[in-house]
Amino acid sequence: MKKMKEKEQVLGNLCLAVEILKKSKSFVRIIPEVRTNIVYCLQNAKDVGDVAGIHGRITNIEDYPFPSGYPGFGASDHLARKILEIRRYNPEYRAAVNFIYTKELGKWLKKYCRKNGIIYGGIDRTKEPKRISKIEKGSMPWKVKEAIKSAGGKIPEIFYEANAPGKEDLTVIIGKSATSVAKRAVKIAKAFEKDSLSLKMNFLS
Amino acid sequence: MKKMKEKEQVLGNLCLAVEILKKSKSFVRIIPEVRTNIVYCLQNAKDVGDVAGIHGRITNIEDYPFPSGYPGFGASDHLARKILEIRRYNPEYRAAVNFIYTKELGKWLKKYCRKNGIIYGGIDRTKEPKRISKIEKGSMPWKVKEAIKSAGGKIPEIFYEANAPGKEDLTVIIGKSATSVAKRAVKIAKAFEKDSLSLKMNFLS
Amino acid sequence: MKKMKEKEQVLGNLCLAVEILKKSKSFVRIIPEVRTNIVYCLQNAKDVGDVAGIHGRITNIEDYPFPSGYPGFGASDHLARKILEIRRYNPEYRAAVNFIYTKELGKWLKKYCRKNGIIYGGIDRTKEPKRISKIEKGSMPWKVKEAIKSAGGKIPEIFYEANAPGKEDLTVIIGKSATSVAKRAVKIAKAFEKDSLSLKMNFLS
Amino acid sequence: MKKMKEKEQVLGNLCLAVEILKKSKSFVRIIPEVRTNIVYCLQNAKDVGDVAGIHGRITNIEDYPFPSGYPGFGASDHLARKILEIRRYNPEYRAAVNFIYTKELGKWLKKYCRKNGIIYGGIDRTKEPKRISKIEKGSMPWKVKEAIKSAGGKIPEIFYEANAPGKEDLTVIIGKSATSVAKRAVKIAKAFEKDSLSLKMNFLS
Repeated sequence: MKKMKEKEQVLGNLCLAVEILKKSKSFVRIIPEVRTNIVYCLQNAKDVGDVAGIHGRITNIEDYPFPSGYPGFGASDHLARKILEIRRYNPEYRAAVNFIYTKELGKWLKKYCRKNGIIYGGIDRTKEPKRISKIEKGSMPWKVKEAIKSAGGKIPEIFYEANAPGKEDLTVIIGKSATSVAKRAVKIAKAFEKDSLSLKMNFLS
Repeated sequence: MKKMKEKEQVLGNLCLAVEILKKSKSFVRIIPEVRTNIVYCLQNAKDVGDVAGIHGRITNIEDYPFPSGYPGFGASDHLARKILEIRRYNPEYRAAVNFIYTKELGKWLKKYCRKNGIIYGGIDRTKEPKRISKIEKGSMPWKVKEAIKSAGGKIPEIFYEANAPGKEDLTVIIGKSATSVAKRAVKIAKAFEKDSLSLKMNFLS
Repeated sequence: MKKMKEKEQVLGNLCLAVEILKKSKSFVRIIPEVRTNIVYCLQNAKDVGDVAGIHGRITNIEDYPFPSGYPGFGASDHLARKILEIRRYNPEYRAAVNFIYTKELGKWLKKYCRKNGIIYGGIDRTKEPKRISKIEKGSMPWKVKEAIKSAGGKIPEIFYEANAPGKEDLTVIIGKSATSVAKRAVKIAKAFEKDSLSLKMNFLS
Repeated sequence: MKKMKEKEQVLGNLCLAVEILKKSKSFVRIIPEVRTNIVYCLQNAKDVGDVAGIHGRITNIEDYPFPSGYPGFGASDHLARKILEIRRYNPEYRAAVNFIYTKELGKWLKKYCRKNGIIYGGIDRTKEPKRISKIEKGSMPWKVKEAIKSAGGKIPEIFYEANAPGKEDLTVIIGKSATSVAKRAVKIAKAFEKDSLSLKMNFLS
């Protein structure tokens, strides 16, 4: 009974998070080719069935983010496994959202995080040992360790994941709830849009 | 903060209720022309902004129920006002779902409810005083009073609403949560389908 | 082969018609409780399987019209049968769209049609003979005859259908293609919104 | 006027192609992380605005392919530019659809194509000259040339594109219409599913 209430609260928080993302024209500019997912898990999540995400992910339709389906448990695999692994270090983290990573965005985000007191890190997958990447779905523990190492031993709240062969580079935000990571993602999208516009204006002048 | 959690729990329960309806091919047969909505409100709901429903309602697409949009507060008007009025008599009722009413279904439902210990009632809107129906959105208090009267003074958990000029006849199920009214609606849809099929088979033999 | 091309052209025209409706915030104000459908049929349409409509109809989501599903043949029943019956009088009419009817809108539309040279008519279903309305789906021939009678013997391009017990009053626009009826519907929605706003401002002053 | 009809025919053919994909549970297994798109262009297509695709791409929802949005011109960028480049060699090709590529699938597809008389090719992007890949959206002419080279000078109707840093490996089918590439994609998905299942059964025994 208590678990059912918690499940409902998780799905409802995802509804509100989608609402936040949907309204942001800026966010659409950082939706990756693989599309954005946003996940939020139960307090005692053990496996991907305890992690809720958006069925079909969040895509872009005519300049706005658009959820292809409803929130549901088991709707995410990759991002779900990522948050589960992170929780082995700190179970307070229960949510994650992803978007594009480019060198330009990474450089900007590093500064943004320093200014705003957010721990930032990154995973360079060229460093990944071959014996790990060979195993289907075997990279996650190494990746999270690497992200923590990149942030000087702390769990980074924002980190990129780049240079894996055949995988799109991505940025991930982790946090305590789906709405909190959604809010942060929209804030970042807006600030980056504004700054990259003024950057372009500098080029022009 | 506590209210936010409650809001999330309400939206999440609606996600689960939609999931229940979506899987039922039988339910699609009782979706009305005006389409089905399902609502669930906060414990201390005061107005339609405290009642969540499905944006765009639940329609039928290729033989399955399909939610046009996400759950959201303020997404329903008519059904929202109905549950708010019912709550003046018993605030334990927080959810409602609607579907078709026909004389055949009504007759069947009356029996079904008697057999299953469910209080059944109905509103015949030809009895509605003209001075009431004239007022925009003014009928609700009269309608709920009438439904209670029809059930011998008790609040009927299932009731029809029929014979209003320009309005489709509908059946309404009320209950304590969106999932509970969805489950009951699907159960009824299945039982009615089965019984009306055997009815037809009797005709044929 | 030729018929396949025609089918594709019909579905594509419906895609464009939905595009037109979707952008109109004014149109959302005249979407009825039963939701809007828009149909377009093959040149030699014989039955509802030759008429394409929008699966799940067009609903309103957060202030914009929104198609619940894709265009498809057989997706409409009622409006499909209406255009088929009208085509018995003039097969050039291949498309129809519907929206709300109220006395206020009807009065306004009558003037609007006169000013713009559009033939307007209406069906008062209280006049319908009982022996007809008893037959399931039997009313269509009478209704179309009545609409033509109301317009002095001509097929009205816009007509209302009102006062049927248990049915929402509706306005219908017929035309040669889905895009043409969609454009006219949006134009009317905008003009009516503008005029009814200035009407309200008159009341206030 | 004639161009309008052609536009409608293109959009309608995409509606039918989506219908074909939607029904295939097998196809869902080969939808890539970047999601599937399907494009179809006008006979005299000059730029991406003359190529129609599916807004938001085709994703997977609860074991079925699901189009996030409607067909529309300009809805695709990458796949649109690919078909435009291929048309420089043979303008009869007007449609394309993409899905996953893995070594296992590639090996199987090569055999499948030989058996069925389909020209098969592939692009290994590790061979791409650096001066080309540096230019934003500059790779297309090289890629199509490479695909043709890989197929012994003929345009391959099915080809993979692999080993680009930060890009998911993909298979592409090209053809004369959206429905024809959709049908072929579903046929392949089914045959591959069947064969890979029997492969697994061999492993088990």
